[in-house]
Amino acid sequence: MKKRLLGGVMALACSAVLAADNTNGNILLPEVNLKGDVSLKTALEKRRTARNFAKEALSPAEISNLLWAAYGVNRPNGKRTVPAALGKHAIELYVALPDGVYKHDLGNNELIKVSKQDVRFASDGRKMGSKAPLVIIMVADNTVFGAKGERYVAMEAGAIMQNIYLFCSAYKFNTVVCGSFDKTVLNNVLSLPQEKFVILTQVVGCGG
Amino acid sequence: MKKRLLGGVMALACSAVLAADNTNGNILLPEVNLKGDVSLKTALEKRRTARNFAKEALSPAEISNLLWAAYGVNRPNGKRTVPAALGKHAIELYVALPDGVYKHDLGNNELIKVSKQDVRFASDGRKMGSKAPLVIIMVADNTVFGAKGERYVAMEAGAIMQNIYLFCSAYKFNTVVCGSFDKTVLNNVLSLPQEKFVILTQVVGCGG
Repeated sequence: MKKRLLGGVMALACSAVLAADNTNGNILLPEVNLKGDVSLKTALEKRRTARNFAKEALSPAEISNLLWAAYGVNRPNGKRTVPAALGKHAIELYVALPDGVYKHDLGNNELIKVSKQDVRFASDGRKMGSKAPLVIIMVADNTVFGAKGERYVAMEAGAIMQNIYLFCSAYKFNTVVCGSFDKTVLNNVLSLPQEKFVILTQVVGCGG
Repeated sequence: MKKRLLGGVMALACSAVLAADNTNGNILLPEVNLKGDVSLKTALEKRRTARNFAKEALSPAEISNLLWAAYGVNRPNGKRTVPAALGKHAIELYVALPDGVYKHDLGNNELIKVSKQDVRFASDGRKMGSKAPLVIIMVADNTVFGAKGERYVAMEAGAIMQNIYLFCSAYKFNTVVCGSFDKTVLNNVLSLPQEKFVILTQVVGCGG
């Protein structure tokens, strides 16, 4: 992964702002650099849903760490922080920020801008996403696992969700996962082909 | 939870044996006592599937810690290490050991013996479970979430699976999750009612 910080933005929790690094609006994330000072035990003990959010943006470093914990590569052979059913992965992560929606390019650790629309409000029925700086949108491909598709993609989404919960409890972010979201808005803004669909959204931010 | 050790069995990793504590064969587990010396970062970095197992049993203390990490209560209000969709949980954990199958009674932290049969072989198509000391069997209730049942129970199973993976990577156990298992054997030995079904099995043991 590329080692590059965005315009001197500091990686301080809940204090940084995001800035595009080029004219197409993409955001190259800094290399993953997770602190190892919080135990798994503490992360499990503090795992909880919290629906209050401050508006402060996550820093690029925080987003980089969050996406790695959620679904990142943890070995030179390309394997990841969640297991691969039948040796395959079926989820893609998108990130909804106030200035638009981005697809996470895992290889370059870059957020690729796919829309200028703010769709955070569509993350859940209560529009909690609007109050938070970031919503992760999990997009599943139902064709990857064949006949076992529906169950296996849901399990993979559940594993990613759990990683996000543990990351948030360890690094003091609030988060809530949402199984009900505005499909019409999200499918439209993401221009998903027929075989892909939004399976979960997860709101992340600092406590408000 | 009750604080009681089984007949002086020590909680040394991969060195203890399990023993029933009463005539009905149930096993009262010791209080959860997880060490906090492994970081979430390390658990995520080392998360992997490993299919080689030693035959040594997990100690009661290790099983207690494993089940808590997987799906335990982490707050006085009864909430747990995985989120509850619609405020509900839909999974029950069973443990297959060489001397039989046990249902985890969460309230008493006790393994309730439901069969004397060794069904570890039925955990997966390759019969890996036979070589390992322990198989967790996740049983789902399809009626809990109504119309969204299938997807939500699979997500919950995925979250539990991920907790088990992270526990195993942190505390140096090997594990493999299995989506294909011998349904006939497992349904029969567990005597499941129509609305319940095995959704995942997960083999756990020390490295062989």
